[in-house]
Amino acid sequence: LRNGFPEVVLGQGKQPEQVAAIVCRLAEHSDKVLVTRVDQAMADIVCTEMPDVVYKSLPRLLVLDRSKPIEKIPGILVVTAGTADMPVAEEAAVTAELMNNSVERMYDVGVAGIHRLLGQVENLWRARVIIVVAGMDGALPSVIGGLVSVPVIAVPTSVGYGASFNGLAPLLTMLNSCAAGVGVVNIDNGFGAAVLASRINQSGQ
Amino acid sequence: LRNGFPEVVLGQGKQPEQVAAIVCRLAEHSDKVLVTRVDQAMADIVCTEMPDVVYKSLPRLLVLDRSKPIEKIPGILVVTAGTADMPVAEEAAVTAELMNNSVERMYDVGVAGIHRLLGQVENLWRARVIIVVAGMDGALPSVIGGLVSVPVIAVPTSVGYGASFNGLAPLLTMLNSCAAGVGVVNIDNGFGAAVLASRINQSGQ
Amino acid sequence: LRNGFPEVVLGQGKQPEQVAAIVCRLAEHSDKVLVTRVDQAMADIVCTEMPDVVYKSLPRLLVLDRSKPIEKIPGILVVTAGTADMPVAEEAAVTAELMNNSVERMYDVGVAGIHRLLGQVENLWRARVIIVVAGMDGALPSVIGGLVSVPVIAVPTSVGYGASFNGLAPLLTMLNSCAAGVGVVNIDNGFGAAVLASRINQSGQ
Amino acid sequence: LRNGFPEVVLGQGKQPEQVAAIVCRLAEHSDKVLVTRVDQAMADIVCTEMPDVVYKSLPRLLVLDRSKPIEKIPGILVVTAGTADMPVAEEAAVTAELMNNSVERMYDVGVAGIHRLLGQVENLWRARVIIVVAGMDGALPSVIGGLVSVPVIAVPTSVGYGASFNGLAPLLTMLNSCAAGVGVVNIDNGFGAAVLASRINQSGQ
Amino acid sequence: LRNGFPEVVLGQGKQPEQVAAIVCRLAEHSDKVLVTRVDQAMADIVCTEMPDVVYKSLPRLLVLDRSKPIEKIPGILVVTAGTADMPVAEEAAVTAELMNNSVERMYDVGVAGIHRLLGQVENLWRARVIIVVAGMDGALPSVIGGLVSVPVIAVPTSVGYGASFNGLAPLLTMLNSCAAGVGVVNIDNGFGAAVLASRINQSGQ
Amino acid sequence: LRNGFPEVVLGQGKQPEQVAAIVCRLAEHSDKVLVTRVDQAMADIVCTEMPDVVYKSLPRLLVLDRSKPIEKIPGILVVTAGTADMPVAEEAAVTAELMNNSVERMYDVGVAGIHRLLGQVENLWRARVIIVVAGMDGALPSVIGGLVSVPVIAVPTSVGYGASFNGLAPLLTMLNSCAAGVGVVNIDNGFGAAVLASRINQSGQ
Amino acid sequence: LRNGFPEVVLGQGKQPEQVAAIVCRLAEHSDKVLVTRVDQAMADIVCTEMPDVVYKSLPRLLVLDRSKPIEKIPGILVVTAGTADMPVAEEAAVTAELMNNSVERMYDVGVAGIHRLLGQVENLWRARVIIVVAGMDGALPSVIGGLVSVPVIAVPTSVGYGASFNGLAPLLTMLNSCAAGVGVVNIDNGFGAAVLASRINQSGQ
Amino acid sequence: LRNGFPEVVLGQGKQPEQVAAIVCRLAEHSDKVLVTRVDQAMADIVCTEMPDVVYKSLPRLLVLDRSKPIEKIPGILVVTAGTADMPVAEEAAVTAELMNNSVERMYDVGVAGIHRLLGQVENLWRARVIIVVAGMDGALPSVIGGLVSVPVIAVPTSVGYGASFNGLAPLLTMLNSCAAGVGVVNIDNGFGAAVLASRINQSGQ
Ligand SMILES: Nc1ncnc2c1ncn2[C@@H]1O[C@H](COP(=O)(O)O)[C@@H](O)[C@H]1O
Ligand SMILES: Nc1ncnc2c1ncn2[C@@H]1O[C@H](COP(=O)(O)O)[C@@H](O)[C@H]1O
Ligand SMILES: Nc1ncnc2c1ncn2[C@@H]1O[C@H](COP(=O)(O)O)[C@@H](O)[C@H]1O
Ligand SMILES: Nc1ncnc2c1ncn2[C@@H]1O[C@H](COP(=O)(O)O)[C@@H](O)[C@H]1O
Ligand SMILES: [Mg+2]
Ligand SMILES: [Mg+2]
Ligand SMILES: [Mg+2]
Ligand SMILES: [Mg+2]
Ligand SMILES: [Mg+2]
Ligand SMILES: [Mg+2]
Ligand SMILES: [Mg+2]
Ligand SMILES: [Mg+2]
Repeated sequence: LRNGFPEVVLGQGKQPEQVAAIVCRLAEHSDKVLVTRVDQAMADIVCTEMPDVVYKSLPRLLVLDRSKPIEKIPGILVVTAGTADMPVAEEAAVTAELMNNSVERMYDVGVAGIHRLLGQVENLWRARVIIVVAGMDGALPSVIGGLVSVPVIAVPTSVGYGASFNGLAPLLTMLNSCAAGVGVVNIDNGFGAAVLASRINQSGQ
Repeated sequence: LRNGFPEVVLGQGKQPEQVAAIVCRLAEHSDKVLVTRVDQAMADIVCTEMPDVVYKSLPRLLVLDRSKPIEKIPGILVVTAGTADMPVAEEAAVTAELMNNSVERMYDVGVAGIHRLLGQVENLWRARVIIVVAGMDGALPSVIGGLVSVPVIAVPTSVGYGASFNGLAPLLTMLNSCAAGVGVVNIDNGFGAAVLASRINQSGQ
Repeated sequence: LRNGFPEVVLGQGKQPEQVAAIVCRLAEHSDKVLVTRVDQAMADIVCTEMPDVVYKSLPRLLVLDRSKPIEKIPGILVVTAGTADMPVAEEAAVTAELMNNSVERMYDVGVAGIHRLLGQVENLWRARVIIVVAGMDGALPSVIGGLVSVPVIAVPTSVGYGASFNGLAPLLTMLNSCAAGVGVVNIDNGFGAAVLASRINQSGQ
Repeated sequence: LRNGFPEVVLGQGKQPEQVAAIVCRLAEHSDKVLVTRVDQAMADIVCTEMPDVVYKSLPRLLVLDRSKPIEKIPGILVVTAGTADMPVAEEAAVTAELMNNSVERMYDVGVAGIHRLLGQVENLWRARVIIVVAGMDGALPSVIGGLVSVPVIAVPTSVGYGASFNGLAPLLTMLNSCAAGVGVVNIDNGFGAAVLASRINQSGQ
Repeated sequence: LRNGFPEVVLGQGKQPEQVAAIVCRLAEHSDKVLVTRVDQAMADIVCTEMPDVVYKSLPRLLVLDRSKPIEKIPGILVVTAGTADMPVAEEAAVTAELMNNSVERMYDVGVAGIHRLLGQVENLWRARVIIVVAGMDGALPSVIGGLVSVPVIAVPTSVGYGASFNGLAPLLTMLNSCAAGVGVVNIDNGFGAAVLASRINQSGQ
Repeated sequence: LRNGFPEVVLGQGKQPEQVAAIVCRLAEHSDKVLVTRVDQAMADIVCTEMPDVVYKSLPRLLVLDRSKPIEKIPGILVVTAGTADMPVAEEAAVTAELMNNSVERMYDVGVAGIHRLLGQVENLWRARVIIVVAGMDGALPSVIGGLVSVPVIAVPTSVGYGASFNGLAPLLTMLNSCAAGVGVVNIDNGFGAAVLASRINQSGQ
Repeated sequence: LRNGFPEVVLGQGKQPEQVAAIVCRLAEHSDKVLVTRVDQAMADIVCTEMPDVVYKSLPRLLVLDRSKPIEKIPGILVVTAGTADMPVAEEAAVTAELMNNSVERMYDVGVAGIHRLLGQVENLWRARVIIVVAGMDGALPSVIGGLVSVPVIAVPTSVGYGASFNGLAPLLTMLNSCAAGVGVVNIDNGFGAAVLASRINQSGQ
Repeated sequence: LRNGFPEVVLGQGKQPEQVAAIVCRLAEHSDKVLVTRVDQAMADIVCTEMPDVVYKSLPRLLVLDRSKPIEKIPGILVVTAGTADMPVAEEAAVTAELMNNSVERMYDVGVAGIHRLLGQVENLWRARVIIVVAGMDGALPSVIGGLVSVPVIAVPTSVGYGASFNGLAPLLTMLNSCAAGVGVVNIDNGFGAAVLASRINQSGQ
């Protein structure tokens, strides 16, 4: 629809050949194609067929970008509680960049070492919208939500074990955030957070 | 903190006298006070103590507003699937209005009668941010998310019975929305949706 | 029992040799045998033993059909929200066909792009019973249930991740459908949906 | 839409005056109005306003029927496991009757006394569609599904205690029925079962 | 403790060498040793060390029995709903036999074909205690509980998919059995059912 | 069916008049009638109609017993962890007595004061079957199961709060008992435990 | 057992007269008796019988303390996230005081206004053990656990609504705390937290 | 922060090379580094890079300890219910030792053979803090909590199957312990239990 918005395919649960075919077809009408949740084996097959597709292994994304470079719109900040949350955070960051936003990153500032976050609070205040990615206790969005007055998008991750129940624990934490103004997306859904953040960041443009 | 933002008290689980005292104290420093989840009995006691506090019975809100009238910022649309979702929708709408936004309403346009929604799609396109309130199947945000390119805030409600499990069903539906760009808040949390919508609507101002 | 109804074996959780033996035995008394939830390895072993058994890899079905061609009864439509729902949809379609129904298909018409469905609404109106297959938010049966006056059978799928909880999310959505007249079957149970649809479609014959 | 189909209101969660007003308004355009999940207090208020509205206390239904008597279409059988399931069963039966179906009843034939059911199996065989209502273990639809070749609609009820978890236990039982051809509706949803049964029963008419 | 009762080891979650060592040690003081939940790889290692240990692959049991043959006590009947429930049923049967009970078997008599069970009801009446093994809907113990006046031990199995939630569905069914006199053990716990049945069967001896 | 076995009615969810009528009818053919889960209001109405019906308020049972006194069969012991478990324990004990068993009681011997139980271990050893009633952690059956070699019936109760989730916690504890030979019934189901215990106790008679 | 440790009764689920009798009996052997989870009606009856029993209405405790005043052991700090968590916090504080600890309080310092907590961090550092009471997101223990090196006891409360699921959300948060050294007790269990804190505080004395 | 406290890395979910790099970096500033949840493959890679790192395969820990030997502080006892709980228990014990505590062990004393525990009760009484590790029914902390007056830390494990739901059953048991003074950590979280125990054991030093 909108300029800057890539065609998006959910790679998980599809055959590599099927994905390669879909990407080829989409590339005829769109100068940007994004495939999410792609493992190395699928990436190898698609990239062989389409050599200008790039695989980002950390966020497990396949990116085709034939668009002309334009100036990106600043305003999105992606924050993580731990280093293990980085794959989801990068899924969000790369998706948002592909939608013509420039993205700041602030990683590994979880609440168990609150000084790490407080030492960079000025960076929080520069953002127009903040994506907060956290697993385990999922407590970070509540703290950040209280420090800023811009929209906060909370992304629970499946990082953790036992009673994290694959991300259920941080999901519930975030839905019950004692800081108002927090919107929550699905567990590990960096992609969805980025689309929402981009809509907010480009709102009124 | 921010101009236009009321002090907010969660009424539920507090004693009426306790709430009256808190409102009195807050009113000394703030020209707007909001109390959420207030029943008629609590409202009666607080309004006796503070005659310029107004009780809105549908959204169960107590509102004190001594601020000077200023021009509201347009852009927020509140949509419901059914008429039973109106209390939550009004909690959102009144809260957003108190935060200096003007609010449009589009009620009872659930997906089982899709023509009701499609007949008003132009109204969807005028909004800068849309709050969608739905119980039971919680399907409405997925349809609206596909019709617009602005941020959508989904509010699941406890309207329903049996396997709705007090709002769990629409909550899960919304978290799994096949339309990207949807942020979810807690079950029945019209207040939280309004804060997020207001932050988005006033973003960049 | 009934003419046109195949003997059905649940392949999952059985040894390939065990399935081969059961198929052989059933084939002595029945001209149609169906095995569901069969992977390629099991299929290879069974097909080696019984060369006229056919393996359909997308719906993971083994089909033995030695019956005389008869005219199929029209009336069943199978609809999916996404392309990833196709294996379950095909399990339903192939099963229904084996039960002497002719089956129409309408795939990838999920609610996030509602125009895709509305553009084919005439096809919905031609059906006597509609099977709707959807994962993630599971919203499609609610929309279709409001557009038609025939029975709708909803099949939740395990397509999705995170808070879809392997199909729990669309299952709950469908049980809480705001459109009345929707019957739900187990997650990924295309087979069961087809049996129910066939009973409805052949009702009164 | 369709002749014979009443306008339907969910009474639960609405104010009695609100319901009275809705019924009045609907009665202007429709000769049949149905309100479900109505307690005695609400019924008294509505019946005072609208003297030709009838309250059925067992199924907790308000019925307005000004239609001309026509011949009902036979074919629907409603079965219960216990006597405590009768309110839900009657919600189904009365709704189906209002939709111009004639309805047979077979109550208190739960599987713990299997001879009660087997002694009336001829009645099962006369039906064109069977609604089976059961709480606690929810086992009855599996037995009936194996005895007939017509569609079975299973309605779990909240009858039971402890690990029935308000109807979750029979709901799961029914979704996992080892008899194919069973469609399930929400817990205690006699109304929805009737709509589906009526669509099946009048299919092809 | 008691004569006839083997030493029992839970194989699952242990190293094969660890299990071999434990069996060796136990065999010094006991003429019977049983290891449950053993896969083929573990069995091979243990049987190499202890050549008179026997592996039963269907119930995944390792059995060492150096006891003198004595007359078994009749009275235990093991029943299954489907063929896929046989591994759990055999775990129960072999365990009970090792405890000096003779065991009858009645397999694949699930409630969706109720005549299969009713045709053998005399065999039910000969038992002193009945173990009923069922997955999916778990309905069989309710029917059997109503046909006999001896204790019934219900064993839910993880056979099934989707909303069976790995055996949760039949577990809840059995706990809510509308037939009184049914005791339930853990999902797939054929071993525990056998111990309970043996205690009942040998009660008073 | 069997001599000594009363006709049993589940009082909960029925109208008092309905129960009175059912008891009257049953009393024509049976010299014993039992109604479970009866509150004082229902009891008053039934006892007015049927003066020889006795209400036991602790276990909330209505008992009609016109049978000739016979010698009771000893062997059943009912044990509780706490005093709050006594209503469920008495439901079991009174039911078992009505079925012609004599019943021993050992109350308030929970595992947090293990000496209380160990001081009476001889009483455990005299029983032929033991019913163990416990809420909260539900740990008592595991300890008792290790001390005896007779069948143990575990009854979880809804005594507790918070993460006991109305009896789910002790239910799961009991299903996972590390002592084999424990059969579990529904939460608060003293009645069901008694029927099972009576069948075991009278087994072989 | 230990000096300073009161006899404790769980009031909830008992009859007032029963509680009065238990308190009387315990008071014969102990100079301290504590009853938890007591409502006003129960308190009135007990206090009439035992005039030196004191009712604390906020924590809903009945306290009998006839012990000689001794010097309390300092070291326990009780912290809450919100004012609505105060009843549970006071249950902990009063219990700990009765066990001869002196208790500091720091209330309403939830993470959404992190400066409130950070402004009093010196008070955190003075404690030997900290009880942290929080509902909704339950995030506070994670922040405090990172600021101190003493044991932290986390108490989830049922304060909240919707997806807090009566305290499940903060319970899971606390179990998954990204700060190590946090022990969790049951939802709303201020009493249990106090016993644990007292054991820690008096450890080595 | 504190002397004796190692730097800790969660190995699970990271790449081996990533872990090796983190360990190298941490070793520059700390004389102790601990990595938890490490499999053999990751251990091999890290140990090749850092030859003085030691891999403990049972608790799956990587340990670097270049500190000078100092006298350990006695007081921590680690207890398990079964042998299958030993990996979690050793994770706790090794972690606590690395934090300068000396640790006693008492393994395989589960409640189904209560004499095993009671025979060693003197060892319980010597401890200053006790870590109790148990899966399946998780009953052991309730018994131990009643035998001692020191703090008890309960660690549920994922040992078990079926209705243990990967450790949920013992987790709930422990949260509902009828013995007060028990703090619970996450499922399989031996590490967290050790940190809490060490804080308690070194409290006041
Ligand atoms: N990681 C993801 N999470 C959620 N939705 C996604 C993801 N990746 C793609 N999608 C959505 O899924 C749709 C594509 O699904 P499909 O047609 O099955 O490839 C797109 O419209 C996206 O909005
Ligand atoms: N309905 C509501 N839902 C969620 N949070 C609320 C609600 N009403 C008030 N709050 C928040 O709760 C805080 C006040 O809590 P309290 O101090 O307990 O009155 C405010 O900062 C609000 O952000
Ligand atoms: N995919 C499926 N889902 C649900 N039920 C099935 C499926 N495939 C076969 N069945 C049923 O399972 C029964 C066969 O089970 P079995 O005897 O174990 O092969 C048949 O009567 C079918 O009705
Ligand atoms: N407390 C109870 N728990 C479980 N089942 C019960 C209980 N009381 C009665 N029943 C059973 O419910 C059946 C009667 O149900 P109803 O016909 O509804 O009165 C009897 O056959 C009993 O076996
Ligand atoms: Mg980190
Ligand atoms: Mg409506
Ligand atoms: Mg698609
Ligand atoms: Mg009955
Ligand atoms: Mg079969
Ligand atoms: Mg007690
Ligand atoms: Mg506050
Ligand atoms: Mg052991």
